[in-house]
Amino acid sequence: MIYLDNSATTKPYKEVLDVFTKVASHYFGNPSSVNALGSEAEKLLNQSREVISKLLNIHPSEIVFTSGGTEGNNIAVKGTALKYRSRGKHIITTTVEHASIYEGYKQLEQLGFEITFLPVNERGRISIDQVQRAIRKDTILVSVIHVNNEVGSIQPITEIGEMLKKYPHVLFHVDHVQGIGKVPLDFKRSNVDLCTVSGHKFHSVKGTGFLYVRKGIKLEPLFTGGSQENSLRAGTENVSGIVAMTKALRMTMDHQQNKIAHLTHLKNLLFQFVEKTEQTVLNTPKEWSAPHIINFSIPGAKPEVIVHALEEHQIYVSTKSACSSKQTSASRILLEMGKDERVAESAIRISFSAETTIEEVKKCMAVIEDILQQNKVIMR
Amino acid sequence: MIYLDNSATTKPYKEVLDVFTKVASHYFGNPSSVNALGSEAEKLLNQSREVISKLLNIHPSEIVFTSGGTEGNNIAVKGTALKYRSRGKHIITTTVEHASIYEGYKQLEQLGFEITFLPVNERGRISIDQVQRAIRKDTILVSVIHVNNEVGSIQPITEIGEMLKKYPHVLFHVDHVQGIGKVPLDFKRSNVDLCTVSGHKFHSVKGTGFLYVRKGIKLEPLFTGGSQENSLRAGTENVSGIVAMTKALRMTMDHQQNKIAHLTHLKNLLFQFVEKTEQTVLNTPKEWSAPHIINFSIPGAKPEVIVHALEEHQIYVSTKSACSSKQTSASRILLEMGKDERVAESAIRISFSAETTIEEVKKCMAVIEDILQQNKVIMR
Repeated sequence: MIYLDNSATTKPYKEVLDVFTKVASHYFGNPSSVNALGSEAEKLLNQSREVISKLLNIHPSEIVFTSGGTEGNNIAVKGTALKYRSRGKHIITTTVEHASIYEGYKQLEQLGFEITFLPVNERGRISIDQVQRAIRKDTILVSVIHVNNEVGSIQPITEIGEMLKKYPHVLFHVDHVQGIGKVPLDFKRSNVDLCTVSGHKFHSVKGTGFLYVRKGIKLEPLFTGGSQENSLRAGTENVSGIVAMTKALRMTMDHQQNKIAHLTHLKNLLFQFVEKTEQTVLNTPKEWSAPHIINFSIPGAKPEVIVHALEEHQIYVSTKSACSSKQTSASRILLEMGKDERVAESAIRISFSAETTIEEVKKCMAVIEDILQQNKVIMR
Repeated sequence: MIYLDNSATTKPYKEVLDVFTKVASHYFGNPSSVNALGSEAEKLLNQSREVISKLLNIHPSEIVFTSGGTEGNNIAVKGTALKYRSRGKHIITTTVEHASIYEGYKQLEQLGFEITFLPVNERGRISIDQVQRAIRKDTILVSVIHVNNEVGSIQPITEIGEMLKKYPHVLFHVDHVQGIGKVPLDFKRSNVDLCTVSGHKFHSVKGTGFLYVRKGIKLEPLFTGGSQENSLRAGTENVSGIVAMTKALRMTMDHQQNKIAHLTHLKNLLFQFVEKTEQTVLNTPKEWSAPHIINFSIPGAKPEVIVHALEEHQIYVSTKSACSSKQTSASRILLEMGKDERVAESAIRISFSAETTIEEVKKCMAVIEDILQQNKVIMR
């Protein structure tokens, strides 16, 4: 099997599953229980917080464990909006956010919030100036995706964060779900207040993730109840999932630079292929893009047909974001980048993990070439 | 080890962990991906829905997978409140709800909702009449816990549900987290609109659960984003967790009547022990209580001291609800039942699973007897 849909989800590392099973079997106590089994489970949570905080150069108390990226993004944006609504009701974001950010704004608009959606350029990027010009006295939040999940465009997070130092009344949230492990981000140096991370995008199990909440930042919780996670996220902690995610993060961050170099090499191979192939159009920008996502279109082709033709060779890719892939319309992201309708509705996304080999990518390219040459019926 | 804290959390069945690992290793695709790995994962989700719906006599489309009981309760109450706020802002509940229900009302009160908290009698129970008398034209929701997590009192859910048929503008939510598998509830016959279930209370892994949402009921989602779970709960589904929970539910419901009879036998043993022991006061009502929870007090003793003394014999029990056990004050539930302060601050909760043996319970009783006889220093 050649799995090239790592932006949708990754295969959990074997070591991660081993840790999960071990914790679930032997340390199954409820961390909130007063007995020793509870204390043991609580200790594992604290150790996980310690490990993650060292890997990311943050403080252990700044980690709020969640069930994943959608939860993190929802807590960050809605939690900020509800907490600071008396200070102001204006939020700045981009037109290329993930659905878990984008869809929430409709609810907030109904509650009287006003959202400024900054348009991106042809490379899917916003500028620091755009953000600065949009700031008003009643702005409470700037929320920007670090690495776009469909095309891999990187936003200038550090520069935006530095600029925002001049506006202490504005919180800064970053959706780092596609970035972690592939496009390093220094939360502190980038002046980030809130940052979303999802476990299953870096070989952890599904249902795991965390939200970085900078010390001193208050949020209105979406889940109320017990006082877990500094009362920011009630509910019995998924201890085995959290320890498994911590293991996955440690493995992901290990030799990170080598992995990024490898991914970049794979990306360049595919870039060259897409550029030399007549029927394809490259959508991923050549500069300021992540090393693991390549998006291109085959105008006139139905992308599902390409996906299924690759499947016959046990090669798995996707069309656009998994979270919106069941809708058959054109990619919202590509349209926002100024691509025409034919390009926007025929996109293929290939996404690597550090485990992906050169041979796998070459095989994928060869099969795509075959499909394009032999099978003209897929063209409309 | 004698584990008697099953109301806080249960040990996952080995078969459940095996299923988890198998799915996470071999069916790791994103159910929303258009490729075959995504379809396989989606198929597993659908099969899980089928199995659960048959076990509970509901429709597959009425299941919304969640990360656990706290999430289910939060979606049910806040989702209803936000959806139907234009119809009315009055909610009826009891004074003995779990924190994941109780704490949310503070947020809703800030949004202008009015909550009627029905007081319970000395057995921790409300009456159908109390509910009916509290209903107003602007009532949108009645939310009642089925089995109280601290003392095991059972509320008259079916009777309340039948009475509520006369009030079609009022939705009925039941927190069934402690009930499932131990105190059967027919969702349909009881006219329940929303019902919360948590996986780790019946030997599934933590981070799993579901909310029953009766066909036709609309809710405002807390997590927006992708269109997963009928757009009621966005986010990549925790496929391996969901399949594991389904396995756990199937195993739990297997020979359910025998298990309940066994639990009831264990409970009666402990009841007799508590009643014949001079220093103890029984808090769990003898009638209308679940078969797996026994709560009693040792007035004058610090309950943590008893918990730790039992721990030396590898017997694990708890004081009150795990979700509020880190607060050292008296039990809110026991005070609401009219117990005095000395009783309310010295409670011990023992909770069984179907795996608990008679020998384990006898050993626990013997050790408690020893502690009480030998160790008078624990008394204040």
